[in-house]
Amino acid sequence: MGASLAGALKSLPDPPVIRGSTPDIHEGEKALERGLVDFYSPDNRTAVKGADLVVLAAPPSIIPGIWEEIGNGFPSDTFLTDLASVKGPLFSRFTDSYRACFPHYISSHPMAGREQHGVDAARPDLFKGRLTFLIPFSEKPHETDMHRFRQFWTQTGSPTQITLSAEEHDRILARISHLPHVIAFALLGTLTQSPKRNNLPHWDWPTQKGGALSDILRIAWSAPGLWSDILIQNQSEILSGLDDYEQDLRMLKRIIQEKDRISLAALLERWQENGMEDMRHGRED
Amino acid sequence: MGASLAGALKSLPDPPVIRGSTPDIHEGEKALERGLVDFYSPDNRTAVKGADLVVLAAPPSIIPGIWEEIGNGFPSDTFLTDLASVKGPLFSRFTDSYRACFPHYISSHPMAGREQHGVDAARPDLFKGRLTFLIPFSEKPHETDMHRFRQFWTQTGSPTQITLSAEEHDRILARISHLPHVIAFALLGTLTQSPKRNNLPHWDWPTQKGGALSDILRIAWSAPGLWSDILIQNQSEILSGLDDYEQDLRMLKRIIQEKDRISLAALLERWQENGMEDMRHGRED
Repeated sequence: MGASLAGALKSLPDPPVIRGSTPDIHEGEKALERGLVDFYSPDNRTAVKGADLVVLAAPPSIIPGIWEEIGNGFPSDTFLTDLASVKGPLFSRFTDSYRACFPHYISSHPMAGREQHGVDAARPDLFKGRLTFLIPFSEKPHETDMHRFRQFWTQTGSPTQITLSAEEHDRILARISHLPHVIAFALLGTLTQSPKRNNLPHWDWPTQKGGALSDILRIAWSAPGLWSDILIQNQSEILSGLDDYEQDLRMLKRIIQEKDRISLAALLERWQENGMEDMRHGRED
Repeated sequence: MGASLAGALKSLPDPPVIRGSTPDIHEGEKALERGLVDFYSPDNRTAVKGADLVVLAAPPSIIPGIWEEIGNGFPSDTFLTDLASVKGPLFSRFTDSYRACFPHYISSHPMAGREQHGVDAARPDLFKGRLTFLIPFSEKPHETDMHRFRQFWTQTGSPTQITLSAEEHDRILARISHLPHVIAFALLGTLTQSPKRNNLPHWDWPTQKGGALSDILRIAWSAPGLWSDILIQNQSEILSGLDDYEQDLRMLKRIIQEKDRISLAALLERWQENGMEDMRHGRED
């Protein structure tokens, strides 16, 4: 997502200078060649030098290590954000000493993930029209900090920002993003094991674009390393979401077992009606 | 799907005469107005008169009733097919008397479902590039019948036809289509109940096109009546698929509970590798 963000900023009429860092030297040099960044260093301390605003686009479990690297000598007027998909574990490790190092730190989460990653998958329009969650570290963040990040995300193309607590963020994300990933991963598992389990000598997946299967499986191709990190970081909310989900799945299963067509259609209709309402609310917000 | 099929045939350079039937008079007249059909009658017997080839595009549970209506006096050289999503229950009701009425009957299933339905949702290019399963009623179907239907589906835009038994069809469809629908329906249920269950005062679904949630939920908007019919008709294969799926879901859950990042990433990687192989095989077929 870091490469897409650089692309979004570089496509502005008056693009900022961008200094990039990644431990993958090959990726870093590719970003430099393609003009996504003006400077590249594998060293985080070197990359953040002189920055007005720093974005940490790394898996959640890596971020505290980066705080440790860049905290000492971090300019007191530099804005800081991260794009971690899970906030609770970060917030619990954000001790007073980090608070002193990073006084203008607001966590961010643009709703714009993709199953591909890296410089080759960078898309400058990734954030266009998307919602971004802003998660301040203190209960009463400075309005100037909030303003800076609302402006920043608007510049990337994300027109709407919603402020949440870390707890609310993780609870919502567990349900609208992490749970869908878990159930898509499980479906991929079921499908790949089906020929053996179900004696299917002839096995084809109709994976045409726009088909039900390819849509639902698309997110099952998400990066295993990043996603195992996310799923474990947001463990408790995901397990709670999975409990709810298993309960709903069992309800459907029971109705199918009972061949109760009327109840099944009525249940699906009710869920669809309620779902449309939630989506309408979401759109109006 | 009937309306899309009519549209596909009507967009051929030399379109056939199409006589349509539906119990919904409003839909029938709309199809007539838009030129999808040349003739419309709410009566199935009237509609099939003089036909070279008849397509039954109705929910699986309705089809035997239509056989009953049109069987008596059905021309012995007319080709017949249906588009039912589940074949087993049809085949078990296809007794010798029906076999005598419909000597040129091959069941079909184009992999081209959509969550919308009716004349307004008709798309003449619905079958373009899609796979169609052909399911003959007898173990040794007449080659002329098979040829006629391969030609028919090729004309609609579906370039590939695969012949399956009813049992294979229902086992495969349970896993590549019906199970994905069940798990998407359950996710819709979980999401609509989340604000109440999880104390979420602020609740937005980022349902932007192309987002993970909107992709996985797209099929959860499928017609409740049709889908409760399909899920109950294919009950035993769907329950078997759901057992497998719940097992895979529990495996993911256990690894998340154990916070075993290494095993989780390895499992996801293995499923992705195997999945890519299955898809490759599917494409080469």
